[in-house]
Amino acid sequence: MTQNAPYTIAVDAMGGDDAPATPVAGAVLAAREGNVRVLLVGDPEAVGRELAAGDAGGLAIEVVGSDGVVGEGEHPALALRRNPKVSIAVAVGLVKAGKADAVVSMGSTGATMAASVLALGLFPGLERPTLGGPFIALAPNTAIIDLGANIDCRPSQLVGFAAMGATLMRAYRGIENPRVALLSVGSEDGKGNRQVQETHKLLEASGLNFVGNVEGHEIFEDKANVVVCDGFVGNVLLKFTEGLAVAAAAHLARALGADSPAVAQIKGIADQALRGGGPLLGVNGIAIAGHGRTSAAGIAAGIALAEKALAWDLVRIMRDDLAAVLERAEAAPEGQGG
Amino acid sequence: MTQNAPYTIAVDAMGGDDAPATPVAGAVLAAREGNVRVLLVGDPEAVGRELAAGDAGGLAIEVVGSDGVVGEGEHPALALRRNPKVSIAVAVGLVKAGKADAVVSMGSTGATMAASVLALGLFPGLERPTLGGPFIALAPNTAIIDLGANIDCRPSQLVGFAAMGATLMRAYRGIENPRVALLSVGSEDGKGNRQVQETHKLLEASGLNFVGNVEGHEIFEDKANVVVCDGFVGNVLLKFTEGLAVAAAAHLARALGADSPAVAQIKGIADQALRGGGPLLGVNGIAIAGHGRTSAAGIAAGIALAEKALAWDLVRIMRDDLAAVLERAEAAPEGQGG
Repeated sequence: MTQNAPYTIAVDAMGGDDAPATPVAGAVLAAREGNVRVLLVGDPEAVGRELAAGDAGGLAIEVVGSDGVVGEGEHPALALRRNPKVSIAVAVGLVKAGKADAVVSMGSTGATMAASVLALGLFPGLERPTLGGPFIALAPNTAIIDLGANIDCRPSQLVGFAAMGATLMRAYRGIENPRVALLSVGSEDGKGNRQVQETHKLLEASGLNFVGNVEGHEIFEDKANVVVCDGFVGNVLLKFTEGLAVAAAAHLARALGADSPAVAQIKGIADQALRGGGPLLGVNGIAIAGHGRTSAAGIAAGIALAEKALAWDLVRIMRDDLAAVLERAEAAPEGQGG
Repeated sequence: MTQNAPYTIAVDAMGGDDAPATPVAGAVLAAREGNVRVLLVGDPEAVGRELAAGDAGGLAIEVVGSDGVVGEGEHPALALRRNPKVSIAVAVGLVKAGKADAVVSMGSTGATMAASVLALGLFPGLERPTLGGPFIALAPNTAIIDLGANIDCRPSQLVGFAAMGATLMRAYRGIENPRVALLSVGSEDGKGNRQVQETHKLLEASGLNFVGNVEGHEIFEDKANVVVCDGFVGNVLLKFTEGLAVAAAAHLARALGADSPAVAQIKGIADQALRGGGPLLGVNGIAIAGHGRTSAAGIAAGIALAEKALAWDLVRIMRDDLAAVLERAEAAPEGQGG
């Protein structure tokens, strides 16, 4: 029994490819292994059935009813307006009402973003939240940010990603003064597209520990703790990595047999990419958005991530860090580049 | 003896990380195994020394003297102006003079581009050549184009990449009507950045076999034979793949031992990425640009690629294909998007 769990986490039980089975299993795992209280938000009957099957008696899990879910293909904001009782809206509402400390969803990332922005609001100076983190098991101390939340970016937005990524790596990896780099096509200062060239000047003035440009392969060479790119590039890389890991595992299985230990190793890299849960950065609260194909262990990891963010006071620290960086970048001579 | 070799290929003996040793070894390999005549362009003394060491007697290899080389860090056009006798300039000059049929270089890609454009000229309608091809061993029938030759692209340039990529896949893979796709962050028509959205309309009107958008993971799912992106994204992906393969091989060697067959398998994927030689597309001649870290076998493969391009009359067919596609795209109602 965990009567005195320090944190209460709302889990979107209807979000993800295999909902509600996987989110419920993930919540059970988290409640069994950790000192946390979970509010499972979803269709009470379907969630109750999964809980009954999952041997959840005595665990600090409660069900909060909701009606429907935002599908992957739907327009998030429209779907939320049409039905304010969908699971992600109710789950984020629990955070807003102070009944939960954080929310975790493996459903539509766009819906998690829209619901969180609507209910919790954004940090000053931002137009949208961002998503990023170290998504490659082979480069655990290198976050890539943005991973798809912001597709067409102005240079000043990339500076925001850099600031929030640096705070994230301080919080999650204990890296004191994270090295920040710009993803580009050459490490020399002048190399890159117009966006990179303008952002380069802003980052130099930002007060961040900016180490310059890195190229694609340098992501694996520990050249930086935060690699900044626009969400188009980041999302292509994220999905490319998933596809490459899946294809490499299948290739090794054909070449060496499905039970080769190498297949499991490569799948481990793929799973890491698929797990891919991370906090929305820039909203006034902790909302963890994960991949729809994640496992129960991935959901439990998302819940643990939320607890870690709460314990570290991530939102307050990140908001302050961002404000300081944006102020310095704007005060710089070339600060009008954005 | 190959007195009657159908093609004469000029090889930049000074280009590449390990020049002239590796280019000379690659030329020896190609001349020994194939029916081809090779002109090795470089410092006569250094090249002669490598040839003597390489047991090249009786092979159809001749040395053509040059003076110096364009380094990776140099500005290509400036370097060529400063010294018109550098190896790549002399090698391309042999093609222009009709003394060689094609050129192969693992030196600075920028220098190969600049020298080729200067000496051979571009197809009508182009401002720069492009570089692309199937660079991932796991997706042999999917070319990615552009891989870094064009960093900031207008939509009409991406249409040109699509047309030339389609011709390339017809020539090199015998694919009759290559499926062309746009790399994006969602497969729906409206998904993507502004560049993708505008290019989408132009490709629909291009007369190419356009199958819409693909996401990063779909590169491995045989969704298209030509995946179009700007050179910033393509170059990041190319180098990311190299880095990932190298890191994955090192990871497997640690986990399973350096002599695990899995390490060799993954290194095979890495080598494919590193080999990375391809023709410059859009210049009036065959110029193969390869990776500076490639092996002798990679250089021999580059020579074979040049022969294949010549046998297929790639330049003439690609120039005609491009003209037809650009004409259709420009005539389309939204053809002003570029």
